[in-house]
Amino acid sequence: MDIKVVFHLDWDNEDPLIMALTNMENLLKEVSAEDASICLVANGVAVKLFQLERAEPYASRIVKLAETGVRFCLCNNALRNMGIQQDELLAPCEIVPAGIMELIRLQAEDCAYIKP
Amino acid sequence: MDIKVVFHLDWDNEDPLIMALTNMENLLKEVSAEDASICLVANGVAVKLFQLERAEPYASRIVKLAETGVRFCLCNNALRNMGIQQDELLAPCEIVPAGIMELIRLQAEDCAYIKP
Amino acid sequence: MDIKVVFHLDWDNEDPLIMALTNMENLLKEVSAEDASICLVANGVAVKLFQLERAEPYASRIVKLAETGVRFCLCNNALRNMGIQQDELLAPCEIVPAGIMELIRLQAEDCAYIKP
Repeated sequence: MDIKVVFHLDWDNEDPLIMALTNMENLLKEVSAEDASICLVANGVAVKLFQLERAEPYASRIVKLAETGVRFCLCNNALRNMGIQQDELLAPCEIVPAGIMELIRLQAEDCAYIKP
Repeated sequence: MDIKVVFHLDWDNEDPLIMALTNMENLLKEVSAEDASICLVANGVAVKLFQLERAEPYASRIVKLAETGVRFCLCNNALRNMGIQQDELLAPCEIVPAGIMELIRLQAEDCAYIKP
Repeated sequence: MDIKVVFHLDWDNEDPLIMALTNMENLLKEVSAEDASICLVANGVAVKLFQLERAEPYASRIVKLAETGVRFCLCNNALRNMGIQQDELLAPCEIVPAGIMELIRLQAEDCAYIKP
């Protein structure tokens, strides 16, 4: 079975991010990375969780997941509102114009939605 | 691309409502209202957020979104449990018999689900 | 209309569980149990909510729902991490290897997703 899933974060709270990372790691024990399309979309104040200093405690987990193909997408509306520049963010993060559009688009493409 | 999305609120907490309103406003900068089917369903204690006095700080945003076609659906089971009458609610709100049924029905019709 | 829905719990908090039970009970007033496929998946620390002593206040509601066909699925990764044995759990609970896989699989089979 091919796995398609998007995880959604919108609050400035590390717990749901840690939960999402654990979920992804568990998932990748069940299916090979080639059979999985896994994405995390952060909008609202959740984008702060990916700032370099803030992300230090879990950065290595994000980098390792990104290396297996997991995408980490941050909402540009949110980054702009909070004055956060791309060079302040963990390297594997992608910027998408509107996080909410990405969440809708991915579900329209049959991704499961998980809100940790 | 046509946009179909339902936002779900179930707690007596303004923050996720404000997040949903911001998400909707951002969405309507990306797509025209004619191409979007946007609905918010509130069940459980979240229906209190739409009482006239309580809703004052964000009422104008709800009214403006409703004018562009966004639907605000409140669960009648919840309203009845809390003894809230329709005339105590913001004018654009619709009452649906069971919020949970509406959430399932909309997803069965290919709406994306967003839980702020 | 046939109803297919999965409720997701992942935190050690009774409120979303009570909300889910109420949602399910309301749902089963609208549709007959034969026309509904209702599942709850608990992963992460939410599995603790189904330990016998802890679950006492709402155990009878879970048992009654299970008798009408509602499934209560607990993540084995989570149970193992927390050292919880099957005989410590409410009888109607099923154990699934990975909660996250179950959530993705059910949504791929057109279940609506609800996060209380």
